[in-house]
Amino acid sequence: MSGPHPAVAAVRSAVRRALSALPADTTALVACSGGADSLALAGALAFEAPRAGRGAGAVTVDHGLQEGSDERAESVAKALHGLGLHPVLVHTVEVGGRGGPEAAARRARYEALDDAVADHAPAVVLLGHTLDDQAETVLLGLARGSGARSLAGMAPRTGHYLRPLLDLDRATVREACDRMGLDAWEDPHNADSRFARSRVRHQALPALERALGPGIAAALARTAGMLRSDADTLDLLAGELYAEASGNAPAAPGGPELAVAPLEAAPESLRTRVLRRAALAAGCPAGALTARHVRELDRLVTEWRGQAHIDLPGGVRGRRVADRIRFV
Amino acid sequence: MSGPHPAVAAVRSAVRRALSALPADTTALVACSGGADSLALAGALAFEAPRAGRGAGAVTVDHGLQEGSDERAESVAKALHGLGLHPVLVHTVEVGGRGGPEAAARRARYEALDDAVADHAPAVVLLGHTLDDQAETVLLGLARGSGARSLAGMAPRTGHYLRPLLDLDRATVREACDRMGLDAWEDPHNADSRFARSRVRHQALPALERALGPGIAAALARTAGMLRSDADTLDLLAGELYAEASGNAPAAPGGPELAVAPLEAAPESLRTRVLRRAALAAGCPAGALTARHVRELDRLVTEWRGQAHIDLPGGVRGRRVADRIRFV
Repeated sequence: MSGPHPAVAAVRSAVRRALSALPADTTALVACSGGADSLALAGALAFEAPRAGRGAGAVTVDHGLQEGSDERAESVAKALHGLGLHPVLVHTVEVGGRGGPEAAARRARYEALDDAVADHAPAVVLLGHTLDDQAETVLLGLARGSGARSLAGMAPRTGHYLRPLLDLDRATVREACDRMGLDAWEDPHNADSRFARSRVRHQALPALERALGPGIAAALARTAGMLRSDADTLDLLAGELYAEASGNAPAAPGGPELAVAPLEAAPESLRTRVLRRAALAAGCPAGALTARHVRELDRLVTEWRGQAHIDLPGGVRGRRVADRIRFV
Repeated sequence: MSGPHPAVAAVRSAVRRALSALPADTTALVACSGGADSLALAGALAFEAPRAGRGAGAVTVDHGLQEGSDERAESVAKALHGLGLHPVLVHTVEVGGRGGPEAAARRARYEALDDAVADHAPAVVLLGHTLDDQAETVLLGLARGSGARSLAGMAPRTGHYLRPLLDLDRATVREACDRMGLDAWEDPHNADSRFARSRVRHQALPALERALGPGIAAALARTAGMLRSDADTLDLLAGELYAEASGNAPAAPGGPELAVAPLEAAPESLRTRVLRRAALAAGCPAGALTARHVRELDRLVTEWRGQAHIDLPGGVRGRRVADRIRFV
């Protein structure tokens, strides 16, 4: 007897590994748009969950952004039922508010998924992001130019969100969907060049492949994993340094206060993380606080020559008073 | 009286800052190919050095790779003389050996520059790399997918090499060259799509700009700076952890030996750096030692269940013996 197609086996095995790390009573819900990636994930979950003696359901979100999206959500739900998943939830959301259309749709989708998790606790949501999605995320982060965290991409697990397919390329996952006999729906947004992610997928990544050779998506994903680990380590150590420099004291009414001595003794990228954290605690808006502001603050520590205060976004001022940095 | 063109002022000011950080007796040598970037740098150095009471010369390297390259080197030397630089050295090198044609030419060039520094000690070499070169270097590093260090790009200073123009974009530097009335030579290699850097410059970066918007080169350069600082910090802390885990002992005859306890207590990205360093000290060839090997070694620390040894490149084996990691 021949086993399943290698692509199907790869997707199932990725799902099996993800499930094996969960407590026995946790319900696994797959977030499924009806696209090939999440449909393959749903198929693999429907196959693996009963073998692991575990409940498995699905959520599909109707963003209401396209004509007939409600009918499509129903047809995706029908396919998910057909796979044997239970419950199959259809969440209709209203997209709007802050940020561009991508950000708004994303926010509404995650709110609906959070609700589903809360309704079926203890539960997790499986997301169909692939290695290629990870590579796109890294490139989108590159454009922000804001350091390791913005290049660290998506984690295999964040809270109750799991991404079992992050090590598999999109071609493998799509092949698996096909081999499982599932009918995928291609979201026209994915090819719509008004969206940055679509331009990265269809223009930037192919150009990078032509310039640098094949395997660039895998290299970007590998980079993301290493930088995420680096960023976690640096954030952890910066947390320890912050506690030391602030004497573990709660922020003073006027804002946080840091002793200079432990900062002076620390390497630059811990020092700047601590200063950034203190500026945020003092009320600087995260979006407006740039690396340049933090560098200026850092000069109060490393190049102190009696400078006046440093003006920071949100009307916050950083100032050195003797051997302490104060924020007001 | 009107001052110099803003582009000329920007290049001169960058050179002035770089010179001001050098001891008074250090000779500044500009490495000049005759291309617009290094010619603008030479022009700015010739202007600034006498005002700072400092000696300034130039080196041009004849790679002998193109018909008439010797005549061209002579004509570049003549232009450098004309700027008032002294000495003007023409080094003829032989390109060949390991790696691709780019790597071989680069190696030969740096050897010639090292020789020039040694002959005129104390001396430094100024290199004309711009913000755009930095962005290209980051993208070339991305393709390697080997973490923060490979994305950290070029440092403003490495040993006796200085890169004063790293914060200026190429358009500004070329404009400065033009405004200084200098005749630049365009190396046909720069447009030759057989070279990865040329493909990145002419294909990948423009595609990224189209996908992600303008400013991508600056974002990449900013990222490089932050990741270099992160990598320096992590390397420093990993050095301390290595010393602690090895008990500051010189490597045993059988190879280095590390205590598990301090590694277990350390965050992942320090642990893996220490294990990588130990594997290299044990004789693994750097190019062959992958992140996967290091992850396997790390499981001896974090998921120890009596595994047998881990086979590493170069015939090295990592093994856990009680509470120590040994390499043989």
